[in-house]
Amino acid sequence: MRIVNLDHISSNPLLPEVKQAMIEAIEKDYANPSSQHQRGEEAAQALADARASVAALIGAESPKEIIFTSGGTESDNHAIKGIALANAKKGKHIVTSNIEHNAVIRSLRRLKGQGYTLTSLGVDETGRVNPSDVADAITDETILVSVMHSNNETGTIQPVEEIGAICRERKVIFHTDAVDSVGVVPFDVKEMKADVVSFASNPFYGPVGVGGLYVRRGTMIWPLLDGGVQEHNKRGGTENLIGIIGMGVAAEKARTDMEQRLTHLKGLRDRLLTGLPEHIDEYIINTHPEHSLPNLISISVQYIEGESVMLMLDDENIAVSTRSACATGSLRASHVLLSLGLSHSDAQGTLVISYGIDNTEEDVDRFVASLGKVVKTLRDISPLYKKTHS
Amino acid sequence: MRIVNLDHISSNPLLPEVKQAMIEAIEKDYANPSSQHQRGEEAAQALADARASVAALIGAESPKEIIFTSGGTESDNHAIKGIALANAKKGKHIVTSNIEHNAVIRSLRRLKGQGYTLTSLGVDETGRVNPSDVADAITDETILVSVMHSNNETGTIQPVEEIGAICRERKVIFHTDAVDSVGVVPFDVKEMKADVVSFASNPFYGPVGVGGLYVRRGTMIWPLLDGGVQEHNKRGGTENLIGIIGMGVAAEKARTDMEQRLTHLKGLRDRLLTGLPEHIDEYIINTHPEHSLPNLISISVQYIEGESVMLMLDDENIAVSTRSACATGSLRASHVLLSLGLSHSDAQGTLVISYGIDNTEEDVDRFVASLGKVVKTLRDISPLYKKTHS
Repeated sequence: MRIVNLDHISSNPLLPEVKQAMIEAIEKDYANPSSQHQRGEEAAQALADARASVAALIGAESPKEIIFTSGGTESDNHAIKGIALANAKKGKHIVTSNIEHNAVIRSLRRLKGQGYTLTSLGVDETGRVNPSDVADAITDETILVSVMHSNNETGTIQPVEEIGAICRERKVIFHTDAVDSVGVVPFDVKEMKADVVSFASNPFYGPVGVGGLYVRRGTMIWPLLDGGVQEHNKRGGTENLIGIIGMGVAAEKARTDMEQRLTHLKGLRDRLLTGLPEHIDEYIINTHPEHSLPNLISISVQYIEGESVMLMLDDENIAVSTRSACATGSLRASHVLLSLGLSHSDAQGTLVISYGIDNTEEDVDRFVASLGKVVKTLRDISPLYKKTHS
Repeated sequence: MRIVNLDHISSNPLLPEVKQAMIEAIEKDYANPSSQHQRGEEAAQALADARASVAALIGAESPKEIIFTSGGTESDNHAIKGIALANAKKGKHIVTSNIEHNAVIRSLRRLKGQGYTLTSLGVDETGRVNPSDVADAITDETILVSVMHSNNETGTIQPVEEIGAICRERKVIFHTDAVDSVGVVPFDVKEMKADVVSFASNPFYGPVGVGGLYVRRGTMIWPLLDGGVQEHNKRGGTENLIGIIGMGVAAEKARTDMEQRLTHLKGLRDRLLTGLPEHIDEYIINTHPEHSLPNLISISVQYIEGESVMLMLDDENIAVSTRSACATGSLRASHVLLSLGLSHSDAQGTLVISYGIDNTEEDVDRFVASLGKVVKTLRDISPLYKKTHS
């Protein structure tokens, strides 16, 4: 039976055009873009084309504002550590939120050991930061505000434009981790008033292990990868040109197909939200009804373990996840879900359903029907469920 | 006319087997190796296979000692910064050499701004560090010795086994940047007594933008990319699986074909060294006659600019480089060549001729003949040459 992939947040399939471009790049076997002979110039041109395509996707003023990285995690580490170290003379205070990705949280934790102080803001029950809390948290020592654009576990989108405006007015660098937004929803760095933006290629159907960092001209930031003069002196290391070419094609397609994709994804989302109550009861939707990604729904199904549901669905050839794949292997409940005010048991019963342009209405129907069966089976053997429902 | 690629040090071509494996990986479109469903498990298996292949290439005790990175630069940054930060309580003194790659030099420079002190050792006229200088430089505060295995501009190989033995005895962590050695010459981490080793895939005909870090079990090192729990908690970020699969295949081929490749490369090297004096005079070979890579010769041709030679050879469809591609765009003379005691003018007249398993004896013959012509043309218009030869 065909596997229904509803775990797009862990990895999106490659677009056919991306596959084709990457295969051609492998067959062509480009030289090093920094080499000054003919073969190097061809490679440099391919790199420049991909950079222009990515710059266009996010509304950057110049392709020079784009640094290619090895993915969202490198971009986040580069942003946080690079801004903190480059601006240490101005101050050592950073404002962030409680629901950031581990790449941001753990980078900030490293800095705490080096004399930086943090203010980490809570979110309301819909998972959103209050922009006025950001304004209140900024002091004369604040050098950076880092608040993500959308959360990879709940799909909720933050009021980033308002936060950006506050930072611009207060002359504080604003970084947003937009890994799950760029290429998925309309995203313009100028509207966001963002100085530094992390993003990755796979959320818009490009290859895994490739990402980018937007750095607005004039922003003080150090490299994370010190070394050669690649990427306008901001990131050493010979570029992963095969992956970058794939990302460039994916960015171009994301820009031109955005509206059409959004219509498709919103259709699947509506069908999912309509279908769920026909098959299960006693669940919580953690995703904001309005300010959220179109391709992800977080559901906490009460009285059961999300991991059991995931494994039983896997037996039926349906892939979902319980939380970010990056946190697999960690046994603790998700910090994001706890921040929303969920109980530990509801957090443990959470499923992340993430779909893509390759999913169909039939996929959604098969999922909700299977989920209904699985939840019934698990609740039938749940002592907690029996106790509360007897 | 076919381009003769004698700039392998900037980028090696992909092996046909590597291309095939990468194309298959693209077509297969693996899921995220951290995902716990069937599709994730397939990806995790492919990742494990590549890791085992790389571990075998360098004689690691366990594949768990291998961290996949985005290339040599990330590996070097990870090693230097990760060891320095993790061991700061023990001391803040680091020993290195004057001829390291910029990824090492610039990472160390960052640390100097954070209270670390460096002892940077000179090299003799053949480009080698004296191991007894390392022994003398180690103090009670020393936490790290970082000396490269082979130099990417001269090809000279350092006495790394002796340096490793000294470090092991003195209980100091030993890192070696072996980016241009691993997969090219026999390299065994146990013989080297190396605790941490940087390497990359492209020098052994795998893809660019993929590399690795060997970390001996028990070595104190922090991640450079903080985030998820990937790579045994030592490097966050979803893995570049397509690239890693290519690296795994390249590692396997490098291990099995090593002897045969060395024979071929040494044949080309001998032919080059024999052919040169038949076509040019007044040049210096900067590569150690014995302790050196088999695939690279550095020549300083006197009274001319290396860059002019490179461009004129490019017109004849022969690609060479004047120095590391990573340093292209920097106008300063190479710190490596100056460390050997070369004059500025001889350093500027330096060509790096790097060949590979795809080169033939005819390639070498075409190169030496063209070089002879180009050098004659340039010297005919060189005021310096006329002055010294009138």
